[in-house]
Formats: sequence, C-alpha cells, structure tokens
Amino acid sequence: MAFTEIEYGVTDRIATVTLKRPERLNAFTFTMRGELIEAFDLADADDDVRAVVVTGAGRAFCAGADLGGGGDTFGHRQKGETVDGAPRDGGGTVALRIARSLKPVIGAVNGPAVGVGVTMTLPMDVRLASETARFGFVFARRGIVTEAASSWFLPRIVGIAQAMEWAATGRVFPASEALEGRLVSRVYPQDELLPAAYALAREIADNTSGVSVAAIRRLMWSGLSAASPWEAHAADSRLMAELGGGADAVEGVTAFLEKRQADFPMKVSQDLPPGVPSWPDDPYGV
Amino acid sequence: MAFTEIEYGVTDRIATVTLKRPERLNAFTFTMRGELIEAFDLADADDDVRAVVVTGAGRAFCAGADLGGGGDTFGHRQKGETVDGAPRDGGGTVALRIARSLKPVIGAVNGPAVGVGVTMTLPMDVRLASETARFGFVFARRGIVTEAASSWFLPRIVGIAQAMEWAATGRVFPASEALEGRLVSRVYPQDELLPAAYALAREIADNTSGVSVAAIRRLMWSGLSAASPWEAHAADSRLMAELGGGADAVEGVTAFLEKRQADFPMKVSQDLPPGVPSWPDDPYGV
Amino acid sequence: MAFTEIEYGVTDRIATVTLKRPERLNAFTFTMRGELIEAFDLADADDDVRAVVVTGAGRAFCAGADLGGGGDTFGHRQKGETVDGAPRDGGGTVALRIARSLKPVIGAVNGPAVGVGVTMTLPMDVRLASETARFGFVFARRGIVTEAASSWFLPRIVGIAQAMEWAATGRVFPASEALEGRLVSRVYPQDELLPAAYALAREIADNTSGVSVAAIRRLMWSGLSAASPWEAHAADSRLMAELGGGADAVEGVTAFLEKRQADFPMKVSQDLPPGVPSWPDDPYGV
Repeated sequence: MAFTEIEYGVTDRIATVTLKRPERLNAFTFTMRGELIEAFDLADADDDVRAVVVTGAGRAFCAGADLGGGGDTFGHRQKGETVDGAPRDGGGTVALRIARSLKPVIGAVNGPAVGVGVTMTLPMDVRLASETARFGFVFARRGIVTEAASSWFLPRIVGIAQAMEWAATGRVFPASEALEGRLVSRVYPQDELLPAAYALAREIADNTSGVSVAAIRRLMWSGLSAASPWEAHAADSRLMAELGGGADAVEGVTAFLEKRQADFPMKVSQDLPPGVPSWPDDPYGV
Repeated sequence: MAFTEIEYGVTDRIATVTLKRPERLNAFTFTMRGELIEAFDLADADDDVRAVVVTGAGRAFCAGADLGGGGDTFGHRQKGETVDGAPRDGGGTVALRIARSLKPVIGAVNGPAVGVGVTMTLPMDVRLASETARFGFVFARRGIVTEAASSWFLPRIVGIAQAMEWAATGRVFPASEALEGRLVSRVYPQDELLPAAYALAREIADNTSGVSVAAIRRLMWSGLSAASPWEAHAADSRLMAELGGGADAVEGVTAFLEKRQADFPMKVSQDLPPGVPSWPDDPYGV
Repeated sequence: MAFTEIEYGVTDRIATVTLKRPERLNAFTFTMRGELIEAFDLADADDDVRAVVVTGAGRAFCAGADLGGGGDTFGHRQKGETVDGAPRDGGGTVALRIARSLKPVIGAVNGPAVGVGVTMTLPMDVRLASETARFGFVFARRGIVTEAASSWFLPRIVGIAQAMEWAATGRVFPASEALEGRLVSRVYPQDELLPAAYALAREIADNTSGVSVAAIRRLMWSGLSAASPWEAHAADSRLMAELGGGADAVEGVTAFLEKRQADFPMKVSQDLPPGVPSWPDDPYGV
C-alpha cells in the first residue's frame, strides 16, 4: 500500500488506520479521502481483520478540512463524481464507506477532532476519547453546512437537541462535554486511550464469529434506517435460517455448552449469506 | 388457560406474565413463544387489564433460547409460518406481538436476561431491573445474529454506539452497565423490583383512561416509525376529533376541574376509535 | 403587531416570544395559536433575527389548553382547517411551524409546562428550564391523546421508554426528572434561566452565518426524518456546492485564518440556496 497521508497496518487481527499529516494536525485532503476509502476496502477484504481502530498521528485526531486553499477552500469544486449534478461532498464519501464496513470500527480520538475530523467518526461504531480531545461542528462559523451525512448520523447518536446546540453554535468543546452529550462512550487519560481501544477490539476478535459481527453490523445500521420493525423481522428470519445451521452456529453453541472458547470456521470474504442487508438506497455507488 | 411454561394472572387491574421454567432458567422454547403471544392476546381482550408486568420465576428472567438441542439448536427449522420463504424468527413473533399490545408493558428483569431473554424486552415500554440482573446480546458468540427485530428496537432505545458495542462483543454485563447505557430505566434491590413495577403499573391504572393509553401507545410506537411529524399530525388531528368529545374526555376534564379522581367510562375493547394507528407494514399478520 | 396573548420583540438580534396570559398561567387558546404562528413568520422574515427565545410571563410557562370551556373543551371543534377531513389539532400547527423555523429556537421554561405547554417545546432546538419548572404529558388523565405531533418528537428526544413512561402515567414531574430524562438540556436557578437562554442565543448570533444556521437547522431536522444517510449525502453535496464558494464561506474561512471575528454578508431572506431541504411530506401546507 503506497499510502502517503494515512498509515494502515494489521496486528493480531486488528487493523489500525492512522491519519498521518501531523505537521498539519492531520487536516483532511482529497488524497486522504481516497486513502481512507481504500483502507476500509482492504480491511473488508482481509479475513484476518476482525476490527478496525482509527486514530491520529501526533497531538491531533484531525483538524478538519485543510484550509491551505484560503478563503476559496470550499469553493474549489472537485472534479469527477457528482451527486444529483453537484460535486460530491468528500467527507460524505468517507462516512458512507465507513457506514458500510463489514468490520466494526472504533474511533480513538486522541486530540482535536473538528469539522470533517469529527463528522467522519459518526459512522464508526464506538468513539473513545482522550482527555485532550476537543470537538467542534464548526461549519456554521465557516459559512458552510454540516457535511459527511452528519445530519443523518448526529441527531441519531446524541439526540436532536444536543446536535442542534453544537451545530448552531459551532462551538469547540472538550472531551467532558462530548461524554456528557453521549458523542463519545468513554474518556481516558491520553496514554490509556489506545490500550482501551485495542482492548475493545480484542473483546470482539477473541469471542465472536466474524460472519455474525458483519451481519449484525449491517442489521443494526440498516435497522436504524428501517421504517418499521417488520423489516427487521424479515431480515432476521432470513438470516437466522441461513446462519442457524451454519458451521459458526454449530461451533458457537457447542463451545458454549462445552465451556470452551469457540473457534469459528466461517470467513467473511466467502461465507456472508445473501440475507445480509445492504444499505438501503445506495444510488451513488459508495 | 392451560399454560405450561408461563403463568398468567390478573390482580387489581394489572396482569402479570411470569416466564416459568425455573429449572431451565426460564429458557425460551417454541411452546413458550406461543404462550407469550396468547397471554398478550388475553391482556388486550380484557378491559380489566390496564397494564402488564413481565417477570421470571426463580433466579433468572430468561437465559435465552433453550440450547438443549445442542449444536444444531438454531439449525432446527420450525415448521409452519414463514417470512419471505424463510422460517419465521420465533423471538420476533413475540417481540412484534408485544409491540402492538394495547396495554402498556413493564419488564421486571429479576435476573439474567440473555439472548432472546433480553431482546424480547425491547418492545416493552419500560424495563426495570434488580441488582442481580445481567444482560447479554450474545448472538455473535453463538455464530448467529441479533434477532427479535432487535436491530430496529435496540439502537432506538440505547443509541447505535451502545447497541453496536453490546452486539459486536456479545458481552454479558451487569445491571449497572444496563442502567448507564439506558437499557433499563431504574435498578432496584431484588426485593424492591416487583413492588416498583407494580407501583408504576398502578400509577397508570389509577389515573388514566385506558382508551387514551392504548391510543397513545400506538401513536408513540408508530410515531417512532413515522417518516415525518406530518404523519403524526394527521393521526393526532383525527384522534383529537374522535376522542375530544368522548365520554372519557368529558370525565377527564370535569374531574380535573373538580379536583377529584376521574372515573373513565370508555372501554378499550369497544371504544377504540378508528383513528388509532396500526403498525405500518404488517405484512406477516402479527 | 397587535398581539394580545403573546409578546414579540427583537433586541440585539435575538427575538423573544413571551406567552402572555399570566392570570391564566398562559393557558393555550386558539388566539394564542395564531399569534405564535405569526411570530415565527415574523422571525423568519427578519434578517436581524438570528435566534428565538420562547418563555412565559409570570410564574408559568404554559399550563396547557385553557379548560375554561369545561368538560367539552376538547369536543369543541374549531372551524376552518382540516386534516384528512378532521379538524386540525391546534397544537400541531404551532409545533410544525416551529419545526420549520429558519432561526434556531430556545425554549426557556420558567415554570409549569403541561399538556400543549410542553409539547409545543419539542420542536424547539434546545430546552432550558428553571428549578421551578414542572412538566406533564397529562393527556391520558384528560381522556385525550398526546398531540402537537409529540408522538414523532418525544420518543426521538428522550427515547421511547421515557416517552411512554411519561405519556402512559400522565405524571407531572419536576425539572430534575426532566433533566435526568433528557427532556431539557440544563436546569438553572430561576433568575439565571433567561440569562442562560440569551447567552446561548448570543453564542449563535455572534459567531455564525445565519444562512449556514438556517440551512443546518433544516438539514438536521429533515435528517432526523430521512430514511438513510444517502439522502443526507445528496443534500450535503448540493449545499456544499452552493455555499462553498459563497460570500459567507469566503468570509468564514478568511476570518478564521486571520484569527478575527467573521462578518458574514449573506442574508437568510435573500440568499438561502435552493438546496436547503424543506420538510418532507408537508401535505397540509404548514
């Protein structure tokens, strides 16, 4: 992988994606956008990856869009992809790619996460933060709008009142306020953040079926989109029929009854059953 | 009622449904599935029932699917009903039946509630727990998926981050973590759990119109499914017109103005107005 | 403005709407309904208004529908507008008007807020309360149903378990319970409530683009209605293209880079781009 603005590595069945422009506080660029999407493609394709941890190099997580272009930064329209005739929002392509990840994603927010630096974390499953993290949905202070599909994610994660307070003020706020407002699940001293993120990833990797987790991740996120529980019931019924007699279910139940660790044989790359939901309405091919 | 795996009774306008296989920690079976659905049919049809409390006999609430079938437990396909050609998920039929209950449902989780033992509580209105309760969305550890339409219910109750953390790890966790994560509303010492559940049921039974509560329960749950507040407004407008001049409204307002307890004359079995929403999209007839 | 049951004024770019029937604890009437809608029309049309604070005169916020009509209060059908053939729910017309406000709305709940007195606050962005505030979704105690589209708003704000507990019991509860249940964001001593509401409004007015905030308010609330994040991504992409090269974005980024306060030139009345979402499904023209 010839990545230049991120780092990607796999250790002990956990992938780490590191935003790596520390001299620019890991500010987001079009290059970083493409590399992030590619990293999640790698993680999904690699059966050795059971969870993904995303963090930042140096003292920041991600300071937001790189404003090196000056006042015209957001006016410079990227060529290429469009949505309904408009240039595609770049942060949104990353967010939607993370949303459809087959591996659970843990954000380890090690410092400032502002603008797209925080909105890109919203489709991650769990956000952990260090005491030095700061957050800001600063878009209204820059004359633009909340992006990266955050108008869908944020009010579902923190509630509409908290979402609107943060988005309408554009305030930058500390980890304690993020915790209180349920943007992050837990806050740690700086040197305990990555160990906590890896401990959570390990809890997943060591105890569960990768096929189950991939199917559940899709069920849960598409369940959050579903119009009614009957849609969820239809998906459940199909998946329970497809997986209930499968090798992982036999091993999972047998290991439980024998009070031993399970060793699940199925592989995400080959054994995902057809009933696993895709995201609804993916008109742009992300 | 010839129930064999649950107990059903009504005292002082409150129904109690007790999961009753204490020697198997009230593990869920196909028989229990049918009896639970039948119990909610009874409660809905009985105007003397104003609220339902669900609890477990002995030291558990429900240990999940009975794994007496061994490794093939989830591969054994129940004959009969299907959903889109797949055997129906049994937990889902219970969950959807509880979802459309006309009476408010209070879960009194008195001990371990694992697998379908916890997912069946999600369509209940309020979950209370004892300090000895434990919870686990253990499906990924068994090689299967979250069921009982929990991918619709759980992220709406506890948020997607908490839902994914519990479902991807399959962790079994104590009542304190359930409270912190808002899976349960309150935690009590063991001997105070049922009194608290009955006190809440009594607060409903003694003060409110059964027709109002039935209509509100349908409004709220279908409101959570509704695409926009305009749908809710249409339902409200119709129901306020249908009920505003009704006998319960006249009694409710008059009693309030006279500072006395209201005695509501209308009956759920006869007087539910046509505007009460059904669940959207109920293609499987639950 | 010849308002008789509310007061409307603008000071220092913040509008204040005061419910003003203190001798009736600001009980809601058909006249107040119309005046509230008109006040939000004024605020939306006035570029000098950057945020709206709503509060009550005297010791109450709003005691609910005026029950001066006695037992037949809710049976008296208002002439005029209908929804699907039924008289429109009056509280709903106010709630939906607030929902589509282009200016952020802060509820400053200074005392009892009961019935429509609390449901009208749900489409506000942030609710702050004084220690003397009390709340009650008392509809089931009056023989009617939760109105003002609260079956859509309430479970999304506080979760379905908390929503059902409050709505099924009809309980009147103190500010502390409202805070614990996340109905309000913060509770203040009585004399600190309005200063806190104005400080929050000022944080918005002093730091952000009005066009951004209007667009974000529509994005967030319609995002909460959207079926999937792809809808949000389409809206984001269009708005980032429309606003990214606009005068407010240039000023916002330039001011940030120059470490000075931004002075945004665009006006909500003239410069809202066509990509700003309207509410979905607005069949009744509110």
